[in-house]
Amino acid sequence: MITSAKTIAIIGKYNALGMGDSLNELANFLSESGYAVIFDNESAQNLGLHSHPHMSIADIGRSADVAIVLGGDGTMLGIARQLAPHDVPLIGINQGRLGFITDIPRDQMIPAIAKILEGKHIAEQRCMLQAIVVRDGEQIFSGVAFNDIVLSRGGGSGMIELRVEVDQHFMYNQRSDGLIVSTPTGSTAYALSAGGPLLHPSLGGIAMVPIAPHALSNRPIVLPETSVISVELVAGRDASVNFDMQSFANLIHNDKIIISRSTHHITFLHPEDWNYYHTLREKLHWNEYPSVEGALN
Amino acid sequence: MITSAKTIAIIGKYNALGMGDSLNELANFLSESGYAVIFDNESAQNLGLHSHPHMSIADIGRSADVAIVLGGDGTMLGIARQLAPHDVPLIGINQGRLGFITDIPRDQMIPAIAKILEGKHIAEQRCMLQAIVVRDGEQIFSGVAFNDIVLSRGGGSGMIELRVEVDQHFMYNQRSDGLIVSTPTGSTAYALSAGGPLLHPSLGGIAMVPIAPHALSNRPIVLPETSVISVELVAGRDASVNFDMQSFANLIHNDKIIISRSTHHITFLHPEDWNYYHTLREKLHWNEYPSVEGALN
Amino acid sequence: MITSAKTIAIIGKYNALGMGDSLNELANFLSESGYAVIFDNESAQNLGLHSHPHMSIADIGRSADVAIVLGGDGTMLGIARQLAPHDVPLIGINQGRLGFITDIPRDQMIPAIAKILEGKHIAEQRCMLQAIVVRDGEQIFSGVAFNDIVLSRGGGSGMIELRVEVDQHFMYNQRSDGLIVSTPTGSTAYALSAGGPLLHPSLGGIAMVPIAPHALSNRPIVLPETSVISVELVAGRDASVNFDMQSFANLIHNDKIIISRSTHHITFLHPEDWNYYHTLREKLHWNEYPSVEGALN
Amino acid sequence: MITSAKTIAIIGKYNALGMGDSLNELANFLSESGYAVIFDNESAQNLGLHSHPHMSIADIGRSADVAIVLGGDGTMLGIARQLAPHDVPLIGINQGRLGFITDIPRDQMIPAIAKILEGKHIAEQRCMLQAIVVRDGEQIFSGVAFNDIVLSRGGGSGMIELRVEVDQHFMYNQRSDGLIVSTPTGSTAYALSAGGPLLHPSLGGIAMVPIAPHALSNRPIVLPETSVISVELVAGRDASVNFDMQSFANLIHNDKIIISRSTHHITFLHPEDWNYYHTLREKLHWNEYPSVEGALN
Repeated sequence: MITSAKTIAIIGKYNALGMGDSLNELANFLSESGYAVIFDNESAQNLGLHSHPHMSIADIGRSADVAIVLGGDGTMLGIARQLAPHDVPLIGINQGRLGFITDIPRDQMIPAIAKILEGKHIAEQRCMLQAIVVRDGEQIFSGVAFNDIVLSRGGGSGMIELRVEVDQHFMYNQRSDGLIVSTPTGSTAYALSAGGPLLHPSLGGIAMVPIAPHALSNRPIVLPETSVISVELVAGRDASVNFDMQSFANLIHNDKIIISRSTHHITFLHPEDWNYYHTLREKLHWNEYPSVEGALN
Repeated sequence: MITSAKTIAIIGKYNALGMGDSLNELANFLSESGYAVIFDNESAQNLGLHSHPHMSIADIGRSADVAIVLGGDGTMLGIARQLAPHDVPLIGINQGRLGFITDIPRDQMIPAIAKILEGKHIAEQRCMLQAIVVRDGEQIFSGVAFNDIVLSRGGGSGMIELRVEVDQHFMYNQRSDGLIVSTPTGSTAYALSAGGPLLHPSLGGIAMVPIAPHALSNRPIVLPETSVISVELVAGRDASVNFDMQSFANLIHNDKIIISRSTHHITFLHPEDWNYYHTLREKLHWNEYPSVEGALN
Repeated sequence: MITSAKTIAIIGKYNALGMGDSLNELANFLSESGYAVIFDNESAQNLGLHSHPHMSIADIGRSADVAIVLGGDGTMLGIARQLAPHDVPLIGINQGRLGFITDIPRDQMIPAIAKILEGKHIAEQRCMLQAIVVRDGEQIFSGVAFNDIVLSRGGGSGMIELRVEVDQHFMYNQRSDGLIVSTPTGSTAYALSAGGPLLHPSLGGIAMVPIAPHALSNRPIVLPETSVISVELVAGRDASVNFDMQSFANLIHNDKIIISRSTHHITFLHPEDWNYYHTLREKLHWNEYPSVEGALN
Repeated sequence: MITSAKTIAIIGKYNALGMGDSLNELANFLSESGYAVIFDNESAQNLGLHSHPHMSIADIGRSADVAIVLGGDGTMLGIARQLAPHDVPLIGINQGRLGFITDIPRDQMIPAIAKILEGKHIAEQRCMLQAIVVRDGEQIFSGVAFNDIVLSRGGGSGMIELRVEVDQHFMYNQRSDGLIVSTPTGSTAYALSAGGPLLHPSLGGIAMVPIAPHALSNRPIVLPETSVISVELVAGRDASVNFDMQSFANLIHNDKIIISRSTHHITFLHPEDWNYYHTLREKLHWNEYPSVEGALN
């Protein structure tokens, strides 16, 4: 329940058109409704917002009861990853076309937020992945991902070869352009382009989707979320691993990436009439037939 | 634990070559080891086995503590479906090439069974699906499936159109050759051929895999195992639904198939060194590269 | 060149809304422009068109210099197959959403036809396939297809097994739901749903696309248009072969279907600004991104 | 016909095990049969072959009537690309597992070569692609490819966006990991891994296969071999283009890659009993079923 929320953070993609007006309008509404309002540093400074205090995302994590993010799915992903350790529920407002996780249109912002703050909402938990990179027995990098952790060949190189173990059982040596390890949230992003299945967000599962695998039987596989996945770079040059395409580590032969479920979750607050299948249908243009004249009868 | 097993059923694919000898050898071994042995009616009658009592599969379900099946995966599936309500653990012996779930080779039968009966085994639970067909508000058919429940167009007809709801939320109208609703066990069978992902058996998930869907964005989707899936035949002729390709019902427009997880599970007993990824690797020929000379370095 | 056209047939999908008005308007325009006009029997009788003579499609083939078809791609396919032996060029008018081959919108019908008849058009040739079914050494069926010739399992049966030879060389035994042998025109229809590639219409090629093949390496293959393809039904029940889903033959074991390029072609007359890639882009919704917020920069 | 061949080049992958012996044995046989023999510089120098003259690949192109290559498909591809302008037919010997184009096993080398030189062979022509990279109106790079020309994102970057035109008609803007433009020869290599179709070598066609495309309807498309394909890098960092993964150019925004059929062909000489479908079947493991117990009857 968020009916006890006192302090609400407002975080905007500050360089989006008209963002200043949106943030101010929302801040005024919340303020008048009796909430304490915090802006994020970047928006406040770039947009000259002085009506309320501003702080870093980390401090927002420590101070806010709820965070409202204005932007697209990409903005939301970045903020969610930073707020994850603090367990602050997130609400997403989209100024443009609705996203998978930013599901309130700008022009319905005020009434939608009002209802959510009254407790009329669907709270949905999404899982995250974490990984460490181990070289010569030492951890040299770590990161978390909301969408996916991706091992990838270099741009000017051929295939890489990866040795994959799950829960200490050898799975296979895979030759490919790379390997996507994806959460259900990430299953509508890069993993989908590479041929992976859609995973319902409440499914406890992790998808492993090879990118252009050499062996035609190297198909996407969905593992239980308790799985610990170890991927070793066996061959190939210029390989790297990235986390939501936002942080990166270069890899050398014999580096191991150990991937598991993060201990943190993200909670999204959706309007009461939100439905996952509705979002999928809209985003994937289901029911638009690139059709020759129907043969149905 | 099966260390308390007293009565063991032996069920064979009676028309397979050399099956009589295998069944006798196994019965003798078990009998000498102090277990009561039961044959299934069909094998006993067709192969002339008189050394032990024989009964129907249903009676075996009521009488046996463990059932050993000699045959391939298809034989095992058929028996498993019948024994599911009785909670009898199953052990699979394969006379030919090992299957996904019949994982003990014929020539290691006796020592492998001996170890399993000593309690040295991996007990693995597999889920099943159940469905009813509803016409004009009345249930006209029901069935269970271990692999998959498949809605399918007729052979001489064009696409069918299916209206799919999950947990009473509209998902989409799908035009296709049909729709496969698959357990993790079925994910290596027909669903794989139709482009579905592999699902680890311990994943709580149900895969919905469209067959040759008209809309290119109708991709396979994995749902939580708690989902209730309703599929209505909206258009198309000669459609039917089948359960593991073993029982069938013809469909007419507006028939609804309501699919959910079965309350029954199957327990397989595997040798201690069994591993799912090993089986996958063998069956899918992972690590055999249909390769041009490698570009790795 | 069709500047010498004297007699023009008008063929309509008679049960489409407003078709009578469209046919009359077009007939009047052509008549006033000095052309002899023929209707097809079905439209004339069903819509009560008496202003011009009407005849069967076969007689139209013998009498007309050009045929204009009002309907969708499906209507066009049916007429094209009947007119193919007579080498009558075709023009397609679409009352609804434009098709792959019916590319003139109803509301631009008169000026578009006027320009085409002035010789301002793109003439495009499309190839067809023909096949015979051979049982016990005798031909029991024959047919032609504009889109595809499809071998298919029965609705209530499992996989079929097909033995495929090309130019008398053994290719493989394929286990699947069926096999689509497609022209470039058909490559945007059923073959696309089953995972086949798009083939440019001027490519001399035939696509063989397996439907849900058992072996994951049974991938679509494109053969030269000179290929003679023999497909034998080796195993499986209730199999059939169809031609553009319009004519059918039931198959029994050892029936052979011998497929080759038809000696006939179809010529379509497109407006001068017609372009294949434009049509593809529209029909396949290219450039509509089911996207998470872009990661481009 | 190669019955008039006088001078035969022998080219080896010099660092393969036992290559020196193979080259010497072959040279002796040819020499005794009355042919002039030439080695390539690298093999001669690395393996200390002094029995016959050696020269550069380019000089071999000018001097030899036939070239015999010992190695795998990768070695053959590299040599073929260099010899293409000189129209020297190629014969491939494979020391290991047979390749798609190196189809004579080492242990049948002498009798197989003898028969081919008697004129008992199948001569098969394979096409190549060529491309130039244009920046600010000037050509900055050019290359040829036997398998494929690949535009690709950088290893640490997200998608790239490519604007594709064919024969000066706009096709689409594609967002993806990259784009493979492949010959029929290349259709069994990287293009296959990325989901492309197999193309018969005698098909006049070029496959465009997107790598992990953002839009699910961006499917592989096969174009006539006369097509001129222009691909412009519109967005994305660190992109590059490569030719058979052997030569590379880095790309910046607005660079255009203009791809067309090369004026050169490669001629392979195969043993008389060679057959393309046999090779496919072997290399792709067709007829090996990763199967659950068959449902056929």
